[in-house]
Amino acid sequence: MSETREDGFLGGRLQIAQPVRGFRSGADAVMLAAACPAQPGETVLELGCGAGVASLCLGWRVPSLKLTGLERQEDYAALARRNAVRNDIPLDVVTGDLAAMPPGLREQSFDHVIANPPYFLSGSRAVDSGRDVSRQESLPLAEWIDAGLRRLKPGGMMTVIQRADRLDALLPALQARAGAVTILPVSARTGREAGRIILTARKGSRAPLRLLAPFVMHDADRHLRDGEDFSGPASAVLREGDSMARYFAKVP
Amino acid sequence: MSETREDGFLGGRLQIAQPVRGFRSGADAVMLAAACPAQPGETVLELGCGAGVASLCLGWRVPSLKLTGLERQEDYAALARRNAVRNDIPLDVVTGDLAAMPPGLREQSFDHVIANPPYFLSGSRAVDSGRDVSRQESLPLAEWIDAGLRRLKPGGMMTVIQRADRLDALLPALQARAGAVTILPVSARTGREAGRIILTARKGSRAPLRLLAPFVMHDADRHLRDGEDFSGPASAVLREGDSMARYFAKVP
Repeated sequence: MSETREDGFLGGRLQIAQPVRGFRSGADAVMLAAACPAQPGETVLELGCGAGVASLCLGWRVPSLKLTGLERQEDYAALARRNAVRNDIPLDVVTGDLAAMPPGLREQSFDHVIANPPYFLSGSRAVDSGRDVSRQESLPLAEWIDAGLRRLKPGGMMTVIQRADRLDALLPALQARAGAVTILPVSARTGREAGRIILTARKGSRAPLRLLAPFVMHDADRHLRDGEDFSGPASAVLREGDSMARYFAKVP
Repeated sequence: MSETREDGFLGGRLQIAQPVRGFRSGADAVMLAAACPAQPGETVLELGCGAGVASLCLGWRVPSLKLTGLERQEDYAALARRNAVRNDIPLDVVTGDLAAMPPGLREQSFDHVIANPPYFLSGSRAVDSGRDVSRQESLPLAEWIDAGLRRLKPGGMMTVIQRADRLDALLPALQARAGAVTILPVSARTGREAGRIILTARKGSRAPLRLLAPFVMHDADRHLRDGEDFSGPASAVLREGDSMARYFAKVP
């Protein structure tokens, strides 16, 4: 891995080293953690934990979690271990591939699985026509969901953040295996289409799907200053480490 | 069929007889018509047209359409034919079952298919009147989508209004057969989860899914007077017969 640099997350409450060049987690990882409804003492597996941002944000907010991160790339896994120590948050990082889960993980099941699967899978941007590309693209995302569902306890919760346009890959992958699917659209501005979705689902549930009101990232009609015009709710999540549970709660 | 009564639609621009007791179309059928992007001269098939409200609203807004309605119940089909004559809008109503499409329809393909499939799964509610025959789903939602896709020309558009919680049945049914899936959530109030979705999809397209900002039906925080507190956009659609095309347009 190339040079790393420490970035502040949650308003500087966490200091997390990430590669200067390469995959860098940002707001999406923080929101993933904010949306996971884990309770103190529960077990959480993050698929593809990278440098550990989502798991460490979750561990910062919810005490006494048993956090496990699975990461395919050894250099990121090592970085996640160092970041956990640096922030004094216990995180067990396992190096391995989610499609060939290490035996030690295959024997475990978890209360929660969280994931921020890659947004641009192999070949997805190279060609915009041809069904093979679409199939290649949707297959890996389905494997993330499949791997997550396998590691969940019955009634366990999966929480995923993903590009909004991948909803058509996510829902079929969950079909008949999870329910209570709840979709929080995330849009840059009020009135804009969603760029991301945060999706939660309960393994084995038959409860109906819910499509929530959007979570809006920025107040202003246009982007004014880089990273400085977050909406109040977005700022509370990104800067203060607030839970997003209220957005998933049912309005009476 | 029992007694019928004429209801005004589009601010009284259409007078449509519906049974006093039994299935009665309302705002959903009007919004379905408003969301269909049919252009003058094109062909449109409505699956399960009932008394013809959606097709007649569409025919009122867009001139020179070739409108066909398929309706399983003969008494509703007869009513739709009378309503078409009464409003001077040509509508060819075919009596038949979408799962066993009449041969005359099977030979045709259409630029557009529109549908407002029943909202309640058979068995989920007690059946106690003719109304429930229409509102209950005797066929899985996937069969409605399948029948619609079969009757579309390549590149033809399907437009469906449905309960938001059925998104997990709609997307798998469309998978690999239609693209450019565009989901307009419809919510009662700002900040509430969606009660309905209006979904458009293009047969054979590989374009990505879009999850739009919600269409909000009512301005007030609470329901003040029955049917009298529609938002400006909802009133324009329901009272003036406006197209909903602007909500589906891409924001530059």
